[in-house]
Amino acid sequence: MTDIHYLESNPRLSRSVVHNGVAWLAGVVAADCSQGIAGQTRQVLARIEELLAASGSDKGKLLNVQIWMKDMTVDFAAMNQVWSDWLVPAHAPARATCQVMFDDPSILIEVIATAAV
Amino acid sequence: MTDIHYLESNPRLSRSVVHNGVAWLAGVVAADCSQGIAGQTRQVLARIEELLAASGSDKGKLLNVQIWMKDMTVDFAAMNQVWSDWLVPAHAPARATCQVMFDDPSILIEVIATAAV
Amino acid sequence: MTDIHYLESNPRLSRSVVHNGVAWLAGVVAADCSQGIAGQTRQVLARIEELLAASGSDKGKLLNVQIWMKDMTVDFAAMNQVWSDWLVPAHAPARATCQVMFDDPSILIEVIATAAV
Repeated sequence: MTDIHYLESNPRLSRSVVHNGVAWLAGVVAADCSQGIAGQTRQVLARIEELLAASGSDKGKLLNVQIWMKDMTVDFAAMNQVWSDWLVPAHAPARATCQVMFDDPSILIEVIATAAV
Repeated sequence: MTDIHYLESNPRLSRSVVHNGVAWLAGVVAADCSQGIAGQTRQVLARIEELLAASGSDKGKLLNVQIWMKDMTVDFAAMNQVWSDWLVPAHAPARATCQVMFDDPSILIEVIATAAV
Repeated sequence: MTDIHYLESNPRLSRSVVHNGVAWLAGVVAADCSQGIAGQTRQVLARIEELLAASGSDKGKLLNVQIWMKDMTVDFAAMNQVWSDWLVPAHAPARATCQVMFDDPSILIEVIATAAV
């Protein structure tokens, strides 16, 4: 079997698991959920960049992303603006977005990514 | 690193990303959401076939699928009928289905697939 | 192309699909949903262990996991306790958890896992 590398592990999860050329990232939410959707999205994407770097990858190698949002009606356009500004042109991942419920009502967005390493 | 191929990219997402023998498809919804669950499911699966073909794969090589539905109580049986008729026998992917909320209330189903290439 | 192995297939899904060193498991719910969250979580994790073994993997090789819950406010802490007790220390997968709706109101948790083989 090939090696598996676990990054920033705790008893519940690892923030990234790297195996066979793919980094699987845990769901990322904003550290400061007092911010609105633009601020939370920026925080989430900055944290993903950090985890990708630690995994030997970067945002130009994203494979797929799930975006979970609290309220797509209100927040979808603002999230997309921050998202598209952040992406590397012509390197957009496959993406799916839906509305879910979070345990903490201040969480507006969670992003789950995989990337090539 | 291995190559990454992006299909039908726009500033927000790619419809398929191929890397290391796997095609990661974006979430697919029906183009015509005036149709009911059977019609929307047929549209979604036809579009997935199209994306798989463009990715060098086909519906006999699906690995896993998430099915997001607006109303499983009402629509689950009809979706499953269309789904099972469409699958290649003995090549069914791992599957998980749940009920979520979509931004557009006319969307009844979204399907996210990965497939071997 | 590399081989694809389908485990416990039916006309709707396979319980595990193995390809290119990765096992993709279907979403797993408890067989006996009369139990509470701790019991359902234990059932789900035991079933995942069984599917991983049949796939040539084990719980020390999990890559990522999505946990879908009916009620995170009520059930999150108890689920996490069972979950952390079950994990192989320092081998925690990337994880994302959210609250969704299930078709059967007695289902409290569904887990979708991928693992290295």
